[in-house]
Amino acid sequence: AIIEAAQGVLTPQRLAGRRILITAGPTREAVDPVRFISNRSSGRMGFAIAAAAQRMGAQVTLVHGPCGIPPPRGVLPVAVESAEQMLAAVQVAWPQSDAAIMSAAVSDYRPLQVAPQKLKKEAQGGQQIQWSLTENPDILAYAGANKQPGQWLVGFAAETEKLLQHGTEKRRRKGCDLLVVNDVSRQDIGFDATHNEVMVLGPGEDAVESWARCRKDEIAQQLMERLAACMETA
Amino acid sequence: AIIEAAQGVLTPQRLAGRRILITAGPTREAVDPVRFISNRSSGRMGFAIAAAAQRMGAQVTLVHGPCGIPPPRGVLPVAVESAEQMLAAVQVAWPQSDAAIMSAAVSDYRPLQVAPQKLKKEAQGGQQIQWSLTENPDILAYAGANKQPGQWLVGFAAETEKLLQHGTEKRRRKGCDLLVVNDVSRQDIGFDATHNEVMVLGPGEDAVESWARCRKDEIAQQLMERLAACMETA
Repeated sequence: AIIEAAQGVLTPQRLAGRRILITAGPTREAVDPVRFISNRSSGRMGFAIAAAAQRMGAQVTLVHGPCGIPPPRGVLPVAVESAEQMLAAVQVAWPQSDAAIMSAAVSDYRPLQVAPQKLKKEAQGGQQIQWSLTENPDILAYAGANKQPGQWLVGFAAETEKLLQHGTEKRRRKGCDLLVVNDVSRQDIGFDATHNEVMVLGPGEDAVESWARCRKDEIAQQLMERLAACMETA
Repeated sequence: AIIEAAQGVLTPQRLAGRRILITAGPTREAVDPVRFISNRSSGRMGFAIAAAAQRMGAQVTLVHGPCGIPPPRGVLPVAVESAEQMLAAVQVAWPQSDAAIMSAAVSDYRPLQVAPQKLKKEAQGGQQIQWSLTENPDILAYAGANKQPGQWLVGFAAETEKLLQHGTEKRRRKGCDLLVVNDVSRQDIGFDATHNEVMVLGPGEDAVESWARCRKDEIAQQLMERLAACMETA
């Protein structure tokens, strides 16, 4: 706590007065009261971003799925489970924010129906079964489509191949100013790792930066400095 | 650590020399490198059982899915992800064990095919999709079917309705000596909670005990005392 307080004092307050929305972690989509669909996001990258923004003086709202790690001090944590719950929280917070960093790994699909009781193996019907899934709301696209002048939107892309191509397409399609791309096929970085190695695309059409592999808190700090610089020039 | 050591000294070594296999936590069934199917098991009940058995002098092998909590000291932890990996570990450990307590919440089904690359939303084909799933191996039934004379098998049932009926059927079907039934529809006990309230069925055909709500470590201790008593009379 003393170290955190010292870091706060020593960090230039480049984001003082800025209201920043951050989404983090996975979502969980219930199949029944027991089973769910989810993904390997640990929430560490988003929590590190929230801590960095808070240290730089921002008022941070952190909307997060189930992560199992405590939210950083000094941020407003909003705990959700499903993509629909996350969207509802974002719909409240985004219009009041100067910037959003959407690092959550939102499940693309959820079960079409949620069983009210635990599905018995015997009742599911044999060796092979089918689950019907329906598309979840696209929270990043919602934020992009509802971006007001002066608001900054930062998206994340977790890719396993064709990183630059997929990232460039995603940045355009979702209406992000910046897009952070990471390679989740590598074991040493990304999901559930302490380190990351990312490409940052934008805000210009052809702007691409490759950042060297480093700790997630260092990436977070660099990213918030990058965002602060964008916001200062606007 | 001092308290743990003192508890070890103060706990009668009723399980001294016994080799006990414990399974705990959820399994994760990969859909692709990022997505998975899992369930709400926290592993807390199984980890508490492992700690209790170890305190009572047993040699404990703890086969566990992704839990996010550290295994208790003095046990042999075997970390797995999928049901197939858990079965492989159990097939090695069970023949060498005097008793097994199978508290893991094993996924009944896994995706029929695991995609080698992250499935792109666009490539999955629209608003509604189907996932084809195939039945997982039944680890508890494997242990029941391969039980040797003198081995004791304790199963768990997580139910949301008709607890006694479902539990009685499951105990018989899986070949368990004891079956611990808990009601996972209640928020205050079971999955991810610190407390639990269970029914214990067996070893006699009509034997049913209802245990009062208490902390998971107390349930674990009681259950290991119950098992030790069974093993002593055999």
